[in-house]
Amino acid sequence: MHTTPSANTPQLPALLAALQSRFGTQFSAALAVREQHGRDESAFDIAPPDAVVFAQSTQDVADALALCQQHRVPLIPFGAGSSLEGHLLAVHGGISLDMSRMDAVLAIHPEDLTATVQPGVTRKQLNEALKSHGLFFPIDPGADASIGGMTATRASGTNAVRYGTMRENVLALEVVAANGEVLHTGTRAKKSSAGYDLTRLLVGSEGTLGVFTAITLKLYPLPEAVMAATCSFATLADAVNTTIQIIQLGVPIARCELLDAQTVGMVNTHSRLNLPLAPLLLMEFHGSPASVQEQVETVQAIAQDNHVLGFDWASTPEERTRLWTARHNAYFAGLQSRPGCKVITTDACVPISQLAQAILQSVDEANAAQQPYFLVGHVGDGNFHMGYLIDPAQPAERVRAEQLNTQLVRRALRLGGTCTGEHGVGLHKQDFLLEETGAAAVGMMRAIKQALDPYGILNPGKVFAGN
Amino acid sequence: MHTTPSANTPQLPALLAALQSRFGTQFSAALAVREQHGRDESAFDIAPPDAVVFAQSTQDVADALALCQQHRVPLIPFGAGSSLEGHLLAVHGGISLDMSRMDAVLAIHPEDLTATVQPGVTRKQLNEALKSHGLFFPIDPGADASIGGMTATRASGTNAVRYGTMRENVLALEVVAANGEVLHTGTRAKKSSAGYDLTRLLVGSEGTLGVFTAITLKLYPLPEAVMAATCSFATLADAVNTTIQIIQLGVPIARCELLDAQTVGMVNTHSRLNLPLAPLLLMEFHGSPASVQEQVETVQAIAQDNHVLGFDWASTPEERTRLWTARHNAYFAGLQSRPGCKVITTDACVPISQLAQAILQSVDEANAAQQPYFLVGHVGDGNFHMGYLIDPAQPAERVRAEQLNTQLVRRALRLGGTCTGEHGVGLHKQDFLLEETGAAAVGMMRAIKQALDPYGILNPGKVFAGN
Repeated sequence: MHTTPSANTPQLPALLAALQSRFGTQFSAALAVREQHGRDESAFDIAPPDAVVFAQSTQDVADALALCQQHRVPLIPFGAGSSLEGHLLAVHGGISLDMSRMDAVLAIHPEDLTATVQPGVTRKQLNEALKSHGLFFPIDPGADASIGGMTATRASGTNAVRYGTMRENVLALEVVAANGEVLHTGTRAKKSSAGYDLTRLLVGSEGTLGVFTAITLKLYPLPEAVMAATCSFATLADAVNTTIQIIQLGVPIARCELLDAQTVGMVNTHSRLNLPLAPLLLMEFHGSPASVQEQVETVQAIAQDNHVLGFDWASTPEERTRLWTARHNAYFAGLQSRPGCKVITTDACVPISQLAQAILQSVDEANAAQQPYFLVGHVGDGNFHMGYLIDPAQPAERVRAEQLNTQLVRRALRLGGTCTGEHGVGLHKQDFLLEETGAAAVGMMRAIKQALDPYGILNPGKVFAGN
Repeated sequence: MHTTPSANTPQLPALLAALQSRFGTQFSAALAVREQHGRDESAFDIAPPDAVVFAQSTQDVADALALCQQHRVPLIPFGAGSSLEGHLLAVHGGISLDMSRMDAVLAIHPEDLTATVQPGVTRKQLNEALKSHGLFFPIDPGADASIGGMTATRASGTNAVRYGTMRENVLALEVVAANGEVLHTGTRAKKSSAGYDLTRLLVGSEGTLGVFTAITLKLYPLPEAVMAATCSFATLADAVNTTIQIIQLGVPIARCELLDAQTVGMVNTHSRLNLPLAPLLLMEFHGSPASVQEQVETVQAIAQDNHVLGFDWASTPEERTRLWTARHNAYFAGLQSRPGCKVITTDACVPISQLAQAILQSVDEANAAQQPYFLVGHVGDGNFHMGYLIDPAQPAERVRAEQLNTQLVRRALRLGGTCTGEHGVGLHKQDFLLEETGAAAVGMMRAIKQALDPYGILNPGKVFAGN
């Protein structure tokens, strides 16, 4: 459709000079800074950009984009660097636009349960700012990701089973388009039928359609009562079937996370816990005291029907925080379990009734292939992650892991699911996207990309190849 | 950007012949059929299409679109005809594609809380089909609209305060693009980060980007306990402030609807009820018995603080149905109150904290102008409708009503809201869309329209003029 710009463009030196002149100390072409901006948490090799610009204002973003467009050089927005799918790698060279200094909470409207933040604000920073208002923002990918990055990947996390994902929780955006034009989508009203839903189109666009400069989010009152439980099962099937029944009964559970037995062992070691070495559900209940009590009783009855080994209640906020921190660190616990390894992470999500089949067959295949892995899941959403632990010095291990991933994804698609529940496509799932939605739908995505970024300067090479 | 096709195109006769040949008895150019397809529930004059095709399959839709594209003649998808904004009027001539015969419920997956339907299925028909599964689909615009039309306008209704709108409740689509290509967006999984969110882009696109042929929806278990109450207040301000506090406290109320005193009178007359002639909140609570009890107690305490005159409980399903049918008929009750009148309906939606100002000032202005009206509102969402009752024979009345609407919308925009919460833009709110979101965002919408429908054949003249 159009030629992807490349760092080899003869215009690169002129662009670098123009950026240096415009941005001064906010500009860097130092190798260490470039390498830091050419990696993420994925297993891909570093692909550094040609330079880094540190944005401090919407005007900075508009000017950087206008210059890149003028010189036909790629621009890649960079938040906290916690992508798992290679979103931040400068595979076609170009400029990394670091948004982390745009970290102001611009407005909190407690009376409307909304906040507007700059994209560099991290989820933990936002929740600190909200605490004194008795409010919170529930979306929590494991990492302390930036709100901009979370918006770009349509992120979710452990609370999505009750509170939805970034898709449901972004109300409005300020965004700079490829040509440097600043535009506004959505309002602070809870719903709207005013024209095309540009907000939802941009949420999950992985930096390929525009750069966010302000994001308006839904907030929630801190629940009156919170209870968390760990719940061990004799078999993985029992844990998964408990989850399926909780969801089918409509229990408004706030978190429902699965770890398999060996992942529990990794987490015990990493976070110095003593969880029983058995498949585990980590659950949390939010609501009024009576509603929480009711949810707990329902879930206990379901778990009993599925041969639960035991419940443990974390009643203090400190105990809860310790448990959830351990869950959020499962990725690093997995990494630590095989020194020097890298992780290839799967992210399939299936209709809840298909979850047992999706997980159990994937585990059987990994075991049969003798592939080390960890297994965690936002199972209340039908979403789970196998983290295949590979030795990067052994190319055969990467091949084996990718084969397992392919089998896992194809199974999820056959079961009516998606190749990615929350991580995005990035560099890693472009072929799966095509298998999942078909050439016609990907063609529609490409037509939109072409219309909104005719020179292909926004994060080229992501979502679909050759964009 | 491109020339809007027109019924005056010399290609029209050739198209009509080709459609007649392809569709036989599914094709009609009879005046009565054309006039029936050139109107809706808005106050606009009839603009009949040149012919009507009754689609019975996805292939029918694809063939009709391919022929229209080939001959550069507009095509307008038609569902139940219940639009309030002129969406169905053939303002540039062309073909009305009647979808009402595509009315099959294709699949119900109770174990996943999803269903897939053809676009001509109406919301009442769907709920009949779901009843035996103990499930329901909550989105309920007043009319018995088609699911296709509800998807096209991003509809909501009385239950949206708890269950969200079509934006949150459409999981996947089969859609025919302008060129006749059939494509699929989304899956039955609850969440996904797989590429651009085409589903959400198409939801609310008002027939201008594609024609839906299958729609996959989220379902909900019928609540264990339901209670409904009517609740009268001395002043409109007290009723609105009660609503604001219910929402701010996070009560998961299922319905929270406002009628002002004179609208209560109209509804009493139309539906033979004896509601007290005072501002009224109609509320419904869903959940377990304990949770419903808790919600009721909280709401009663809030209402007491706001000088409630009295609560009435509708405990039987029959009483509840009678009340909600009366509410859904408020539009017709308003029409009946002034024989021969037409209705110009407003649809602003504001952040909840701004709702009292938005409503009370609009009421003051209508009273000062001596404009007859009714007032209903999905106030839990910050959304309300003034229905200005005009004598179509008196042009000055239409002008006055539109002036009041303009004041009302501009106030809503100043308060951080939107010109349309659920009805869509259609013919009526194109200037307001521009005021609300700005030329840059409308420019992005136009670029998408141009990319996906380069000949402008899909419902031209809607959303933005000259599309």
